[in-house]
Amino acid sequence: MGRFSGEGPRSACIVGIGETRYAKWGGMADRSEFSLACDAILAAAADAGVDPQDIDGFASFSDDRNEPSILQTALGTRVLRFASMVWGGGGGGSCGALAHACAAVESGLARCVVVFRGLCQGQQFRFGQFHPWTPHGALLAPFGLFSPPQMAALAAQRYRHLYGTTPEQFGRVALACRANAQRNPNAVMRGRPMTMDDYLASRTIASPLKLLDCCLESDGACALIVTTRERARDLAQRPVAVLASQGCEQHWGTGIIGAHAMPDEIYATGNGRTMAAELFARAGLSPADVDVAQLYDAFTITVMLALEDYGFCGRGEAGAFMDAGHGDWPNGKLPLNTSGGNLSEAYVHGLNLVVEGVRQMRGTSHSQVPDAEVCFASGAAGVTPTSAAILARM
Amino acid sequence: MGRFSGEGPRSACIVGIGETRYAKWGGMADRSEFSLACDAILAAAADAGVDPQDIDGFASFSDDRNEPSILQTALGTRVLRFASMVWGGGGGGSCGALAHACAAVESGLARCVVVFRGLCQGQQFRFGQFHPWTPHGALLAPFGLFSPPQMAALAAQRYRHLYGTTPEQFGRVALACRANAQRNPNAVMRGRPMTMDDYLASRTIASPLKLLDCCLESDGACALIVTTRERARDLAQRPVAVLASQGCEQHWGTGIIGAHAMPDEIYATGNGRTMAAELFARAGLSPADVDVAQLYDAFTITVMLALEDYGFCGRGEAGAFMDAGHGDWPNGKLPLNTSGGNLSEAYVHGLNLVVEGVRQMRGTSHSQVPDAEVCFASGAAGVTPTSAAILARM
Repeated sequence: MGRFSGEGPRSACIVGIGETRYAKWGGMADRSEFSLACDAILAAAADAGVDPQDIDGFASFSDDRNEPSILQTALGTRVLRFASMVWGGGGGGSCGALAHACAAVESGLARCVVVFRGLCQGQQFRFGQFHPWTPHGALLAPFGLFSPPQMAALAAQRYRHLYGTTPEQFGRVALACRANAQRNPNAVMRGRPMTMDDYLASRTIASPLKLLDCCLESDGACALIVTTRERARDLAQRPVAVLASQGCEQHWGTGIIGAHAMPDEIYATGNGRTMAAELFARAGLSPADVDVAQLYDAFTITVMLALEDYGFCGRGEAGAFMDAGHGDWPNGKLPLNTSGGNLSEAYVHGLNLVVEGVRQMRGTSHSQVPDAEVCFASGAAGVTPTSAAILARM
Repeated sequence: MGRFSGEGPRSACIVGIGETRYAKWGGMADRSEFSLACDAILAAAADAGVDPQDIDGFASFSDDRNEPSILQTALGTRVLRFASMVWGGGGGGSCGALAHACAAVESGLARCVVVFRGLCQGQQFRFGQFHPWTPHGALLAPFGLFSPPQMAALAAQRYRHLYGTTPEQFGRVALACRANAQRNPNAVMRGRPMTMDDYLASRTIASPLKLLDCCLESDGACALIVTTRERARDLAQRPVAVLASQGCEQHWGTGIIGAHAMPDEIYATGNGRTMAAELFARAGLSPADVDVAQLYDAFTITVMLALEDYGFCGRGEAGAFMDAGHGDWPNGKLPLNTSGGNLSEAYVHGLNLVVEGVRQMRGTSHSQVPDAEVCFASGAAGVTPTSAAILARM
């Protein structure tokens, strides 16, 4: 029994994880997005030792098209007690959906909730393009912002202006993820290692962001199963505790996404600070207690901002943090995105980061951090509504 | 202190309600949907005595376009801890969003959550038309189902075939709602009373449904504020207890919406039974304890099915129930939709039914049921994923 086994029997934990094969967008042209979502959910149920008919809740985010009313029929779900979707993208979504699932089981609304995300960008639209008929698209287009890299570039530009961060420091984030992907059999970028020269030579997408600052665009699905600690006792896996989780948007923090007014400094950082402080307080921990982190990496800049927002280093210090090798596996003090993350494993909208967090707490990652007991997982920092969770080995 | 004051300090309750003016679709052409949503939320906050800056969560349903990331800036919300959207329409949504808000405050994820729905059908699309690019639209169009009345007509036809229900019995539902609307200053149909002859003479929309079997199409917004009983002590209103709430979809029950396979009888009833049984068990009550009901009335048939699914009468008995006047205000044993409902107050996607439920528990309805202590509010029965809540006077 680990040090985090002592909480109440109704506290939430993760008891199962499942993933499909991940591929570059368009690489699953023979599969429907819906069947991918089902496969991931069935894999998570099998991993947990849960009968899919006993799933009684679903949580996802960002207008996931795989609706519970259809999933329940495909899966044979007997009674559906909870179905929730978090507004917005991967920032507020990935750990936000986890937070909803935890609230559902902790409040007694449901017993066994699946958190999932399915994406088949080859069959639908690509996340790398905005759509003018959405509120965000309509607000941003007049300002020349037609894609996420253009938004993130504003934050990156401001950040570099304020703190003098170098391209190589951004590159360290991309390299750390790519190196981890080489050990992960399911990573899209496995077999394609990257050097700093490769990074520096990659073409500009939206200055200062280069191609290799940007996450992949992928097809695939993943899922987690959440229940209470009490119910987890009868299941197949040693559960992973969710000490705290939240999907939140701090005032001013939605910044670029919403084209809201904001104080100057917010381009650089600030968004997740309130949330992180609340999460650590709820878990009774501090950033220094975290052994491994899975930080939402839509772009390298979001990882830099997350390191600062969530308290792993001081403001403007993320570049030096990466230079010192603190984010590298296995010797860094905070190995990052150990599956390869959205940058090099697959872009499953950040939920794959949480799946990897569970593997770390189980001791089964392909880039396992020895004796890791606490994992911090997050949605994007700085540039979007954000979310995070603190996972622990029980 | 009422008989329902004894629950735990963390149990959820409703402390504020707010509504805009309601109008026929297109009748708010001078207002944005977003500004209507804000007005309703501000009205609910004022009613509760809550500073809008202290709201820390938002819950809505059915792809509500008024995103929390934008609402928070407009309202000045300091910290946003919870933002949830229920998949699907008013069936699973209205009380489902309430259930999410309750789970959020009961689990400690948030402290003060707004449940809201804003609709400006004159500015956006009309709910009375399906859209072939949605999963449901794409599934239903090949079968000749292009609008909600066509779906509900299948259920109504089957129900009449099984139980011999008469047009006049369906008409009793519409008449009860219209009569209540005459006492409600905010009802769109105030000043337009209806007779049985009017009902019977109204044109067929999708046989057997007539125009006056169908709800309104409206512009407007409404909101509720949910917090814990402990926090409610410092606020302006006597809180209304949410004894139990759930957004659920029973297996097979999504029937017509999802075009799933289903056993024969389900066209008539069955959808909300499991949910209702669980809700009453959780509240420690039975249908006989309910003093007033707000049953989702997209169509008269959904009210008939709700009466049976939720246990207020036996299978096939809703027609006789209405004939006996049980649904009429003030003398029926279960006055229905006392604001006029979606049929005659406004179609705010069912959330206005919950607002009216709160008024009944406060004793402030324009069609007040004397000494009412328990109110049952629901999403649509039979034909869609559904949701419900049991409210009580404290």
